[in-house]
Amino acid sequence: MGQTMIEKIISSHAGKDISQNQIAIVDVDMVMASDTTAPLTIKSFKEMGGINVWDCSKVVFVIDHAAPAPNERIANLHSLMRDFAKKQSIILYDAGDGICHQLMVENQHVKPGQLVLGADSHTCTYGALGAFATGVGSTDLAAVLLTGKTWIKVPETIKIQLNGTLQPGVSAKDLILFIVGHLGIDGATYKAIEFTGEAIKELSLDSRLTIANMAIEMGAKAGFVDTNGLKLPYDFENIKADDDAIYDSVHVFDVSQLEPQVAIPHSPDNVKPITEVEGVAINQAFLGSCTNGRLEDLHEAAKILKGKKIHPNVRMIIAAASMDVHIKAVQDGTAETLMRSGATFLPSGCGPCVGTHLGVPGNEEGIISSTNRNFRGRMGNRNSNVYLASPATVAASALYGKITNPKLLLEGAIK
Amino acid sequence: MGQTMIEKIISSHAGKDISQNQIAIVDVDMVMASDTTAPLTIKSFKEMGGINVWDCSKVVFVIDHAAPAPNERIANLHSLMRDFAKKQSIILYDAGDGICHQLMVENQHVKPGQLVLGADSHTCTYGALGAFATGVGSTDLAAVLLTGKTWIKVPETIKIQLNGTLQPGVSAKDLILFIVGHLGIDGATYKAIEFTGEAIKELSLDSRLTIANMAIEMGAKAGFVDTNGLKLPYDFENIKADDDAIYDSVHVFDVSQLEPQVAIPHSPDNVKPITEVEGVAINQAFLGSCTNGRLEDLHEAAKILKGKKIHPNVRMIIAAASMDVHIKAVQDGTAETLMRSGATFLPSGCGPCVGTHLGVPGNEEGIISSTNRNFRGRMGNRNSNVYLASPATVAASALYGKITNPKLLLEGAIK
Repeated sequence: MGQTMIEKIISSHAGKDISQNQIAIVDVDMVMASDTTAPLTIKSFKEMGGINVWDCSKVVFVIDHAAPAPNERIANLHSLMRDFAKKQSIILYDAGDGICHQLMVENQHVKPGQLVLGADSHTCTYGALGAFATGVGSTDLAAVLLTGKTWIKVPETIKIQLNGTLQPGVSAKDLILFIVGHLGIDGATYKAIEFTGEAIKELSLDSRLTIANMAIEMGAKAGFVDTNGLKLPYDFENIKADDDAIYDSVHVFDVSQLEPQVAIPHSPDNVKPITEVEGVAINQAFLGSCTNGRLEDLHEAAKILKGKKIHPNVRMIIAAASMDVHIKAVQDGTAETLMRSGATFLPSGCGPCVGTHLGVPGNEEGIISSTNRNFRGRMGNRNSNVYLASPATVAASALYGKITNPKLLLEGAIK
Repeated sequence: MGQTMIEKIISSHAGKDISQNQIAIVDVDMVMASDTTAPLTIKSFKEMGGINVWDCSKVVFVIDHAAPAPNERIANLHSLMRDFAKKQSIILYDAGDGICHQLMVENQHVKPGQLVLGADSHTCTYGALGAFATGVGSTDLAAVLLTGKTWIKVPETIKIQLNGTLQPGVSAKDLILFIVGHLGIDGATYKAIEFTGEAIKELSLDSRLTIANMAIEMGAKAGFVDTNGLKLPYDFENIKADDDAIYDSVHVFDVSQLEPQVAIPHSPDNVKPITEVEGVAINQAFLGSCTNGRLEDLHEAAKILKGKKIHPNVRMIIAAASMDVHIKAVQDGTAETLMRSGATFLPSGCGPCVGTHLGVPGNEEGIISSTNRNFRGRMGNRNSNVYLASPATVAASALYGKITNPKLLLEGAIK
């Protein structure tokens, strides 16, 4: 019987062939925890009697969710992580180094075909590399730190076939917003999603990461992006589903006519074509996060903002997904272009997306954001309204002080 | 009878000759408030029956002390400032634009010979331009918003004559730390200080701002830097004390043998030559603030860090004094040099210096900082130890993970 991508990866980590809905004990290739979860993981690890982690080369801690520390309590949690990391000789990325998911990919801590766990819901991002990666709780992760193993109930898979080619000004973010809108926030609960088709084949790694990142917004356990067409700085073997693999369901979309999409308050599946929300007033524009803080995203925004000034009613804040992305943007002039337009660079990290600091909105403010979630209060204020969109839409909206279709700008219909 | 600088400036703003210890009603040229004080100023202004400010072109609000907003409460205070600024047509600098004192100088809101009030203690910084500038309370400022006038008891003046030339690796910060150490934290309470002498004449505007900035650390009402030798992008008239002006006291120092200085916990006047504190372990290095976040300061740090990596035990954080400074550092390669060494750029603002967010230390941590105050808890944690030093000393200490004399590095005695 044919296997889906997830069945193949889990089988290879269980040491035997295993099918959907079965439970497997698997070897874990790599684990990750951030400053939101690592302190609890450390506590649980100690309560479980843990002395040394099973393999110090396979554990990554990242200080990114509230970094640099906004208060004394969090500063001391960061110290706890540093002390544990030093004592255990595990890998630590400190405040400002970048967002956990970007660092895991950038520094090759995760590769195609691997099985990776992270104590963060957007761990599914690594599905862009054809890895099985999923978020787990802090306590679950502590058990993995002890044993290097975990149990998994093999999910069924939803296949999403994307045909056609995206138009200029329409990006991977619009694509995944459209899909989240279509499937809904619980449309893939505890299932895996395979993204495939000609529209995927052309996409850069940055774009693929955006797509896999938001699989969790449909409740998915994991999201795989077909590695056909993927370019990585090293050789790897394509993991391909068998032709007779069994799917829970198959959805086919032609994306050629897709317009920019916006998720309106207060849910990422509350998605509308931009034509239905153009003109909504915006006070803050955020470009960043594990969804859309990569170099390609900064380039998209710079293309729109070059030589222009953002609207006086708007604060635009940018957090590159990593220090490496930020340095590249400084080198190639992108950072200067964006700063000259009036945008402020934050240290690389998660702050504004998760509402921990660095850009909490005021009451009644409208926010356009390249992030992944707009639940009420997500950005730190329950009385604000967050709209999710692509980097191009974020930049165009910052420029006009209202939600603006970047296609109109790029086509010269507006200046 | 001869006049000091302060007597001359106050006389010109009182419309009559006035001497020390007399009380004058003066016209105010410009006022400034930050997000720490403007909300209270607005409240008081309204309680006083204020409808329109006396002159909207003379009022500057800056959102810098906790910016971008770290929480909902502060976000709403920022909104209050924006709404008031819009309604009153006053000048507003928003989150990320820069630190109030730098913006006031950079954007020529203050000029030599003017009388400027700010609802921030480091308003004395503008004394670097030969302006009389002092910090006032939020309520006092509200009264000025109504009337454009205030009362001042004319301070006596302490004259500090600085002879000789600073050695390489020794900067204006070392000079002012030395003076603060000598006079003590209440050594100039309600007095003005005039800094003069050949050591001053050679100093850049950036360095002069550092010196005037810390006049308040001796309790001074204002600090004047002799404008002889000052270069500004516009013409101005030197304000010079008369030869027979009466001084409270005169201090003469030769600075040629001055070593780098460090203020140790927990007071800015607890100053030691660096040789007495070398080797103290450092966990965080901060380069920034209204004292030392200017281009010259970033250049000093880059000179030391170029091609090197900061010590793994140290987080180095940098906040340029303004967006303009940051852009210039990006343009000339300084930002890249510093980022490649491992330093993280924060948005321009006051955060770490005042402990509002963006780098609060953990318990028992050692901090080396280019800022102006190291009172217990100033950076947000009463259980940390903050050492104040020059940008060169901050960079050298970040490199070695312990307090390090930058002269040894620059002279090649250590690598």
